Amino acid sequence: MKRMNLTQKWLLVILVWKFSLASSAAISYDEGSSCGYKSCNPVKDGFVNVHIVAHSHDDVGWLKTVDQYYYGSNSDNQKAGVQYIIDSVVDSLLRDSSRRFIYVETAFLWKWWLDQNDKMRAQFKQLIENGQLEIISGGWSMNDEAVTHYQSIIDQFTWGMRKLNETFGKCARPKVGWQIDPFGHSREMAFIFSQLGFDGVFLNRIDYQDQDKRRSSSSLEMIWKSSGSLENNSDIFTSVLYNHYSPPPGFCFDILCNDDPIIDNPESPDYNVERKVNSFLQYVETMKTNYRTNNLLITMGNDFNYQDADVWFKNLDKLIKYANQRQNDSSKYNLLYSTPSCYLNAVHDESSKKKLTWPVKTDDFFPYASDDHSYWTGYFTSRPTIKRFEREGNNFLQVCKQLYALAGLGSEEEDNLNSLREAMGVLQHHDAITGTEKQHVAADYARLLNRGFNQCSTATKTALNKLANNDTNNSSTAVEYQQCQFNISECTVSENENSFVVTIYNPLSRPVNNYVRLPVLHDNYEVHDPEGKKIATETISLPKAILNIPGRDSKATQEILFLAENLPPLGFKTYYVSKTEGVVSNKTHQEFQANPNKNSNGDVEVTKGDIGLTYNEETGLLTGIKMNGEYIPITQKFLLYRGFIGNNGNSANRSSGAYIFRPNDSNVYTVSEKATIETYLGSLIVEIRQTFSDWISQTIRLYCSENFVEFDWIVGPIPTDGGNGKEIITRYTTTLKTNSTFYTDSNGKEILKRVRNFRPTWDLNVFENASGNYYPVTSKISIRDETNGLEVAVLTDRPEGGSSLSDGEIELMIHRNCFADDSFGVGEALNEYAYGKGLVVRGSHYFSSGSFLKLTGDQTLASQQKDIAQRKLLRAWTFLAPTDGLSFKEYKEKHVLQYEGLVKALPKNVQILTLEPWIDQSFLLRLEHVFEVNEDPHWSSNQIVDLNDIFTSFEITSIEETTLGANQLLKENERLYFTRETNECRFDWKNANKIYDATKKLKIELMPMQIRTFIIDIKKK
Amino acid sequence: MKRMNLTQKWLLVILVWKFSLASSAAISYDEGSSCGYKSCNPVKDGFVNVHIVAHSHDDVGWLKTVDQYYYGSNSDNQKAGVQYIIDSVVDSLLRDSSRRFIYVETAFLWKWWLDQNDKMRAQFKQLIENGQLEIISGGWSMNDEAVTHYQSIIDQFTWGMRKLNETFGKCARPKVGWQIDPFGHSREMAFIFSQLGFDGVFLNRIDYQDQDKRRSSSSLEMIWKSSGSLENNSDIFTSVLYNHYSPPPGFCFDILCNDDPIIDNPESPDYNVERKVNSFLQYVETMKTNYRTNNLLITMGNDFNYQDADVWFKNLDKLIKYANQRQNDSSKYNLLYSTPSCYLNAVHDESSKKKLTWPVKTDDFFPYASDDHSYWTGYFTSRPTIKRFEREGNNFLQVCKQLYALAGLGSEEEDNLNSLREAMGVLQHHDAITGTEKQHVAADYARLLNRGFNQCSTATKTALNKLANNDTNNSSTAVEYQQCQFNISECTVSENENSFVVTIYNPLSRPVNNYVRLPVLHDNYEVHDPEGKKIATETISLPKAILNIPGRDSKATQEILFLAENLPPLGFKTYYVSKTEGVVSNKTHQEFQANPNKNSNGDVEVTKGDIGLTYNEETGLLTGIKMNGEYIPITQKFLLYRGFIGNNGNSANRSSGAYIFRPNDSNVYTVSEKATIETYLGSLIVEIRQTFSDWISQTIRLYCSENFVEFDWIVGPIPTDGGNGKEIITRYTTTLKTNSTFYTDSNGKEILKRVRNFRPTWDLNVFENASGNYYPVTSKISIRDETNGLEVAVLTDRPEGGSSLSDGEIELMIHRNCFADDSFGVGEALNEYAYGKGLVVRGSHYFSSGSFLKLTGDQTLASQQKDIAQRKLLRAWTFLAPTDGLSFKEYKEKHVLQYEGLVKALPKNVQILTLEPWIDQSFLLRLEHVFEVNEDPHWSSNQIVDLNDIFTSFEITSIEETTLGANQLLKENERLYFTRETNECRFDWKNANKIYDATKKLKIELMPMQIRTFIIDIKKK
Repeated sequence: MKRMNLTQKWLLVILVWKFSLASSAAISYDEGSSCGYKSCNPVKDGFVNVHIVAHSHDDVGWLKTVDQYYYGSNSDNQKAGVQYIIDSVVDSLLRDSSRRFIYVETAFLWKWWLDQNDKMRAQFKQLIENGQLEIISGGWSMNDEAVTHYQSIIDQFTWGMRKLNETFGKCARPKVGWQIDPFGHSREMAFIFSQLGFDGVFLNRIDYQDQDKRRSSSSLEMIWKSSGSLENNSDIFTSVLYNHYSPPPGFCFDILCNDDPIIDNPESPDYNVERKVNSFLQYVETMKTNYRTNNLLITMGNDFNYQDADVWFKNLDKLIKYANQRQNDSSKYNLLYSTPSCYLNAVHDESSKKKLTWPVKTDDFFPYASDDHSYWTGYFTSRPTIKRFEREGNNFLQVCKQLYALAGLGSEEEDNLNSLREAMGVLQHHDAITGTEKQHVAADYARLLNRGFNQCSTATKTALNKLANNDTNNSSTAVEYQQCQFNISECTVSENENSFVVTIYNPLSRPVNNYVRLPVLHDNYEVHDPEGKKIATETISLPKAILNIPGRDSKATQEILFLAENLPPLGFKTYYVSKTEGVVSNKTHQEFQANPNKNSNGDVEVTKGDIGLTYNEETGLLTGIKMNGEYIPITQKFLLYRGFIGNNGNSANRSSGAYIFRPNDSNVYTVSEKATIETYLGSLIVEIRQTFSDWISQTIRLYCSENFVEFDWIVGPIPTDGGNGKEIITRYTTTLKTNSTFYTDSNGKEILKRVRNFRPTWDLNVFENASGNYYPVTSKISIRDETNGLEVAVLTDRPEGGSSLSDGEIELMIHRNCFADDSFGVGEALNEYAYGKGLVVRGSHYFSSGSFLKLTGDQTLASQQKDIAQRKLLRAWTFLAPTDGLSFKEYKEKHVLQYEGLVKALPKNVQILTLEPWIDQSFLLRLEHVFEVNEDPHWSSNQIVDLNDIFTSFEITSIEETTLGANQLLKENERLYFTRETNECRFDWKNANKIYDATKKLKIELMPMQIRTFIIDIKKK
Repeated sequence: MKRMNLTQKWLLVILVWKFSLASSAAISYDEGSSCGYKSCNPVKDGFVNVHIVAHSHDDVGWLKTVDQYYYGSNSDNQKAGVQYIIDSVVDSLLRDSSRRFIYVETAFLWKWWLDQNDKMRAQFKQLIENGQLEIISGGWSMNDEAVTHYQSIIDQFTWGMRKLNETFGKCARPKVGWQIDPFGHSREMAFIFSQLGFDGVFLNRIDYQDQDKRRSSSSLEMIWKSSGSLENNSDIFTSVLYNHYSPPPGFCFDILCNDDPIIDNPESPDYNVERKVNSFLQYVETMKTNYRTNNLLITMGNDFNYQDADVWFKNLDKLIKYANQRQNDSSKYNLLYSTPSCYLNAVHDESSKKKLTWPVKTDDFFPYASDDHSYWTGYFTSRPTIKRFEREGNNFLQVCKQLYALAGLGSEEEDNLNSLREAMGVLQHHDAITGTEKQHVAADYARLLNRGFNQCSTATKTALNKLANNDTNNSSTAVEYQQCQFNISECTVSENENSFVVTIYNPLSRPVNNYVRLPVLHDNYEVHDPEGKKIATETISLPKAILNIPGRDSKATQEILFLAENLPPLGFKTYYVSKTEGVVSNKTHQEFQANPNKNSNGDVEVTKGDIGLTYNEETGLLTGIKMNGEYIPITQKFLLYRGFIGNNGNSANRSSGAYIFRPNDSNVYTVSEKATIETYLGSLIVEIRQTFSDWISQTIRLYCSENFVEFDWIVGPIPTDGGNGKEIITRYTTTLKTNSTFYTDSNGKEILKRVRNFRPTWDLNVFENASGNYYPVTSKISIRDETNGLEVAVLTDRPEGGSSLSDGEIELMIHRNCFADDSFGVGEALNEYAYGKGLVVRGSHYFSSGSFLKLTGDQTLASQQKDIAQRKLLRAWTFLAPTDGLSFKEYKEKHVLQYEGLVKALPKNVQILTLEPWIDQSFLLRLEHVFEVNEDPHWSSNQIVDLNDIFTSFEITSIEETTLGANQLLKENERLYFTRETNECRFDWKNANKIYDATKKLKIELMPMQIRTFIIDIKKK
């Protein structure tokens, strides 16, 4: 590893000092700090060095809530108290400076830190600074990789690392990723780790067939080429653990384990040193054959281990001592306390010395199977409502952070923002958003997220008032911005007020249009835009399925609809809505007309703008969609798999459960071959309302100025008859010839190609036809007909499991219940109830189709879809407030009705990924290039963004580029270099930074898929 | 409490310094030491002070062996590792100086100490010295009180306290007894605590009816008058715990418990501070009504708690903090970390201030019942062979210590001696000698004790060689002293050698006669006494039952018998035995004669010397015994109870088990109404050999110069037919009118009166007629006919449960098997096997009868029995050695054949209880007066022993009297004084010491039952 020069170090000190104002940690920083690779216990040349890695895997909620895990309550569910883990590890480390421990989950660490007295804090810092206690990964939680969105992953790392930096300084900066429990691994996550500046990542759960092959070919360690666009910048050394994250059998010395300790009194009849050491050395000897270097990593820990760290360390001390004594007797093994990063550094040293090369991986590790019938693809869909709630959380968190920054809120609002930051960090956890937690824990996640919403609502209310108040000296004009439950069409303000304002904030870096639907009790409303122009509205009755959603507490049976046009980038417009008497001109009552036009097949044809669809009047099913000039025959149905129920005694008896999707048989069952249908033809929208059964209904919706078809479905309560659980899919069947191929996104970012019954890196044996071909669809799944140049894509509003099990088909699992636990730990059948009834889920698919070759107007299909995806991920956020009887004119006098955060919109291929308050007067600004290489003939090129004078409320006085996590200056980051087996040359990370370093002129160049992170100092305008 | 004056302190420092040569602890001693009562956290006036006592109850073996408990192995049996307990407690105490912890079992503490590095040792000492870690009780184990012998209890305390003194110095000196788990409490134990100089003792397990009454009458705390002889000197304040030794329900914060921690983050949905504090204060409020002072002791711990001490202390910290915050809100409770001694001191302060008086207890707490049907009287007999083995251990330990001291062995033999000291300390544990451990643990106790025997055999061999070698410069004459398995008539030397020597060492302080029986393969042997005189022998065939004992590995079918006369006090005689050819004159073959004399009832009458017995020829049963001039009609039979088998779901379903004796019904079943009989009439002895069944046989034996009848029974394997376990008793039925009354000893010392279906301190309701009237018989049970002045006593060779269920009867339970566990924790049915068969037990009862009013020659019946008891407890120990072909003359030339340790015998009423090597050139010497007040008209008077020139091998150069445990100068000991409710005056302990302090003249006066302990410096003669 190349060392920093002195200048670099000085800069670092300054930066860290700045980052650490709120903390005394910075003071202890000096050149003599002994952390980092130089604090590693030395390996011994000529020996196989066995790196003993003491660790505890602390789920941020699973069988117990976060608080229950932290405090150690609810022990009937699980014996686990994180407060005791950190306490006792500190004590054990202080007892012997050779001992090492890693800690991972900043959410817990932070809770613990807040509870400590000065003495404990000082001791903890000492351990961080001498390298005994190493923080690795460092996110707020150990996030899932299948159903998380990259924006939220980056946020949760940024938040965790910021806490670490502020509190402990440089020595707490993580150097490696540690994703040892997530159920499969995404390429995007590897990309994020590379961009965080990490030297490597450690994984565990990979397909059992893959694992076998990698063992036998010594390719458990590899270089992961984590982006198809950012070619060389994204390599990351990846190591797959040998034995889960567990200790070797017989060596679990935890208070929770029953393995015998090492008894080294030769007088004792239970003396077992020889037996134990023999068994351990035999284990590492076998392990050695599966790895390429003379370094081996042994995980010594497990879930919530080290509550009584002494039990572990005393016995590890003895194991190391007695095993190393064998060196006098020609043993070639050398045991040492180590950490994953120290292991990685040793592997790197050996790799450099011996000029080792490493296999290259370009795909991902999905789906994850742990045996023939255990495909972990159920959790792609499990708990669909919390999966959606989390996406709402991300949406609102970005709104909240942006408004906070734009309005220049101060520390008094910090807790309100942090509450949502932390909740979103928690939700990323691999047993949170995944739906693999117990029911009561899911409820607690919802509570946490709701609390975050409420607190950020307070912050946004303050921010909006600040931005919208014409008379900043008069706080009596404060507007009571409120939020609505749009998912169940419930809204206090719109239902109860005769006049109210609707403020719609657009978090995207370019203007958007946005349809607004508000539940109301009356027929007639008029809506004025910020200029006072009365705009078109219509009133639409609500489908019965919405009225019937359990828990909905609203008298509204209809909604008014209007289009908010040209919402400014990072800005808002306020619309004035008032109830009118009598029939007004803009009210449209065209709804529920029978038999509009029919096409030549006898199908009913409805269109809105350039988009049309056809359906069969008799079956009530969709028959085709015309869009972007291409008519594609399509049927869409709801079907279900029956979940397998077994005793989990072996693979063949594995049940379908929270983790596992396993159909009972090879059939998929149709819910109903027919749907009753109602058609609404409005001026702004068209709705085809289908009712498939008393628990499945759907509205297919066309908008007058949109380029997608919306499938807005309501599913549930799933009937519990028939003995098996039911796993509900929606299947879109087209005539496309797709050659077993389909495409899914990776964490909402790059697209990966999937081929049915195939994996790129080994000869696959699939024992589960459906489940084994399921992939996480975080935001998009698509198929292509290469011959005809056609593509069909479905964009989702939340993560779902999806596949294309036959050519031309796309299916997405949207809801599921399971009557048995799948025995992977959660210990509960996944069978969600709400308000005493089976869970009802409402969700949307956004359908896009057309030629992927031809341009459609100025857009490609790709750029259309990118636009939809962004607008659905970061929707314009709708706040409502009563007017307190003020007329439009009166209201406008007192308030700014339109605000732009950006002076000008950013180019279409660049997005402000993050704008948030940072330390003091600085902001964190992240720019991303949203297109992949070759995705779009125009937009896939490099793009320069000029940050000069771009924000309306502040100017940038200085800028520093950092790694993705914003915890290190980019120029200070140097990663360990490993050589690919293939003959490609190494990317020069450091020079690369220079090439792109245009920060001084504030002209930032972005390559396709690149994300660049900056700390900007600002001055208010 | 009265403080020491300066002179006293200086003396103390000197003494401690001397005691602590082997340790650096002494160096840290100074006037500034802050341990003792002054280190207690202060109580708060005007409040109810709630003393939070953090403790761990660490059984020295139970479900796991001692080593398994120490190391924490065999976790499937129990999750318990003492090494971790002490480790983690140290860490927790270091974190907060207000925290307190007590430790009890020195056996574990010592194991731990040996494992520690200097840093840990220093920290531990620091905690001892600042009073945070208080050692209480301080024995090697927490001994049982029912089946232990006072000599061994004193030894185990002496050994434990010596280790404490040497290692940690004064601050580790225990101040109170802590007997919280033994299953009932003896008065003798209270006496020992008083003599150890303790200020009080804490108990737990008392009869549930007693507990109820004491609760309602606020007499859970009392003054225990612990001796009927040493009137005032023996008062000890006694406190019975409130809730077992457990925490209040809901407050077990151990890693082994599932109670919720205190969650004090008000943001948490699980915040529970108010609820927890309410519940705790409610608990103490109820508890308060049962105690007399404004101090309450709350035990916060349980079996093997505090392996992760942090879990406890963190939550106790919070409990104390938040409960005491209520004081601002008029709460009258003040919580503080405390210890039992600090609690006691606070009670004492309050008691003195308020002039409180306390109820007086004069009886004991046996038997212990925990509910209507759970009388803990089974363990009085459970595992009868280990109970005997332990007594052998005591016998040999005394021999070993004495020989060690007399021969002046040095440190090179220390480990050999300590091995048996430690094993005996372990055996006293309340799950060791009690038989309430698991089978594998019993095996380990036997292993430990056997190891102690073997190592002490090495020490005694060295000592005997030193004492017996005429030519000390010639080590080639070393004699290979060996030991035999006399209990199964197996002896390598006597069976295989043509000539061998028998060295018989007498550990009593007066000369004794001793019959020697040696298994041999041939008929004819001659025996020469030390003077060369050929003495009478006879050869007797062995009963078949002995030959059949499983595991016996001997070809011997007969034994030679001779009488070793006048064995010198603390000395030995060596006899020379050689095989002869042909018939020799002294061989007697009178055995197995039929029909000797018959008396007027037609019963067969046999006599030997002054003792005779009669039996019925037809039934084979005993009909009477004549002894001390009185013929008493007696029948003796073996009977059995069938053990109850239930599911233990409630009291009525309690099974008979290792702890509990519970007959299935009110019947007792006769094994056989008849016995076949063989009679052996020898010149030295007479044997009536009875065979009751194929698993019960007995030899009734008369000796020519003994004053008891020996019942030598062999019982087992107990048949397993009939569904229930069988609990075997021997019952002696006489015609004595005993008025429901009988007498049993207390730990082998004072005698307590027992009345059937009666307890002295409450109105008893007995629901178990047999079991509820069982008492521990450690060494003696007797009945008296007050009208006729007759007494019948049975002395035992081991502890047994016994009773007198009808007037004139004595019964003793001698063996038992149970087919069910009694659900008090051991989790195994008590059903012992050895060598693949049900356990066979061999044992002896020594029967004594006569008038308790009239003198018999120069003896009273009492003094006869005292003599028997002592000779059976501390038998002359028989060593054998080959002569290597030396003739008697040749052997005698090279060896001393007779040795006297004492210049003159001690008076009959005084005994050297202990003579053992102490630190450096000092010895520990204990003298005891063996008679009770009024027991014997002559011997019950005070006795002066002149120690001048009493030992043959050394003289006493200085002498210091100490407390019984030898860990404090007696004159420095001051105990806390409490006032009896009754109007008796306080005994002035300090002046008492002065009265008896004749140490300067080496003339020691002993009062009845008094034990005085001295450290003597010696000079070898």
